[in-house]
Amino acid sequence: MTIKQYLHDKKKIVEDAMSRYMLSGDDLLDNHIEAMRYSLFAGGKRVRPILCIAVAEALGCTADSTLPVAMSLECIHTYSLIHDDLPAMDNDDLRRGKPTNHIKFGEAGAILAGDGLLTFGFDLLSNPNLCADLTAETRVKLIQVLARSAGSLGMVGGQAIDIESEGQNIPFATLRQLHSCKTGALIKGSVQMGAILGGATPEQYEAFSQYGTHIGLAFQIVDDLLNVTATTEQLGKKAGSDAKLEKATYPAFFGVEGTREKAKQAVNDALSCLEQFDTKCNPLRDLAQYIYARNK
Amino acid sequence: MTIKQYLHDKKKIVEDAMSRYMLSGDDLLDNHIEAMRYSLFAGGKRVRPILCIAVAEALGCTADSTLPVAMSLECIHTYSLIHDDLPAMDNDDLRRGKPTNHIKFGEAGAILAGDGLLTFGFDLLSNPNLCADLTAETRVKLIQVLARSAGSLGMVGGQAIDIESEGQNIPFATLRQLHSCKTGALIKGSVQMGAILGGATPEQYEAFSQYGTHIGLAFQIVDDLLNVTATTEQLGKKAGSDAKLEKATYPAFFGVEGTREKAKQAVNDALSCLEQFDTKCNPLRDLAQYIYARNK
Repeated sequence: MTIKQYLHDKKKIVEDAMSRYMLSGDDLLDNHIEAMRYSLFAGGKRVRPILCIAVAEALGCTADSTLPVAMSLECIHTYSLIHDDLPAMDNDDLRRGKPTNHIKFGEAGAILAGDGLLTFGFDLLSNPNLCADLTAETRVKLIQVLARSAGSLGMVGGQAIDIESEGQNIPFATLRQLHSCKTGALIKGSVQMGAILGGATPEQYEAFSQYGTHIGLAFQIVDDLLNVTATTEQLGKKAGSDAKLEKATYPAFFGVEGTREKAKQAVNDALSCLEQFDTKCNPLRDLAQYIYARNK
Repeated sequence: MTIKQYLHDKKKIVEDAMSRYMLSGDDLLDNHIEAMRYSLFAGGKRVRPILCIAVAEALGCTADSTLPVAMSLECIHTYSLIHDDLPAMDNDDLRRGKPTNHIKFGEAGAILAGDGLLTFGFDLLSNPNLCADLTAETRVKLIQVLARSAGSLGMVGGQAIDIESEGQNIPFATLRQLHSCKTGALIKGSVQMGAILGGATPEQYEAFSQYGTHIGLAFQIVDDLLNVTATTEQLGKKAGSDAKLEKATYPAFFGVEGTREKAKQAVNDALSCLEQFDTKCNPLRDLAQYIYARNK
């Protein structure tokens, strides 16, 4: 199976599960729940849930309980996009080719949709009616990884550094930490949550964590690159917005070609972390290559 | 001990614990962490953590592990205040007698401080280095109650209904649901988390939940009342802001005296839920009375 077919199939499985598990209904909450669903079901590659599932499967775990866990990652990712797009943050009015959440539901509605999705991520992981085969110990580990990856020492912290760095002449070390928190932490967290689901040994957990760090970096470097080289139509969001907000990026430090090299290196580093694993890890190998291939 | 002394002592214990467990440091995250600490340590009555501890103690649990659990409630409550005060929401510039978070740290900073505190609430409950005496089963139950109370079917949903109801002529049933979600859910959740910590039987859990529902209602009714009758100086936030935002409130439906009656009734309902319990519940009885006494 090609990686494109693999991603297509997994995306469908993830989105079907999201339809099943997402909140719906309740008269007075109709608008609020619609606002959450609008962004959650606006498309997207579902990279984080797929990574989580792919790692669990690489370790031999094919249980349905991976799906609510994978979905919790997409809830967190989606909330972060909604809040990042707000006028007070990146002020974007286009996301995945559609009006951003606050354009559609107003700023207050978008803030609350984000808050609701963030909280719902933890609801999914602690819901006694879901993932009945998971032990409480496993759930707590998953929740800890999600909270750490998403919180102030992870994604939220990265966004805080990002906002403060706008228009600043930041050193590369700051950009590195920014990327590692803002995008890297949740991608690494996705891989770690898959490893927990798959019952990884401490050594396996460490190897996957390293893999997660490297593909997280590759992912953000390629994002930086696309913001420079792709069109708005290709991206589904405004191209060139980083330069407009005077954001530090890899291309600003290394140029387009140098940045491609850095992305390639990160992918190679990711691949080397998987050397000890068998062919069940092939989707993870292909995924790493695929992240790099996006830049063309 | 008077209830004032009790609240004073417990507040000190809660705040000491918060100082110990709250994030600090990290060069690049200094501002972000300071923004979270600014609102978390801005004072406040610490009603939710104290309720949680008081219920646990009424059931005979005096373990230190109640403290991080109690703190998680204050993190969630504080984040909700930060986001509620934003220009896109209630647009308040004063809270507890100090500039609101976005006045001090900017809108983006305030949104992220809220996101960080919300996520940190779940971090506290899943952190393996805290509450070592809690079983994983207990942690998952606590996390589920917190996520449900704080999320779209609880506090966030209540705020969504509140925002949509501004300037609308809403029926009383809507106001009732608004209050029960926006303020009631997390207060009830605080009581339930205390009951979980104390190892409540299902019957005890139900009785405490009912108690939580009634004091949550009493609390919000008195808040409505104070917004009409108290001065800005007394409140530490802008008095009369509900009327200005054309918010539906109990006084708008029942007048000041009728609203006092409703508050009194809610307190009596709360007290009757505790009839089966012994004197260890006296602080909870006094707390219910104290909520009512605030209105004078």
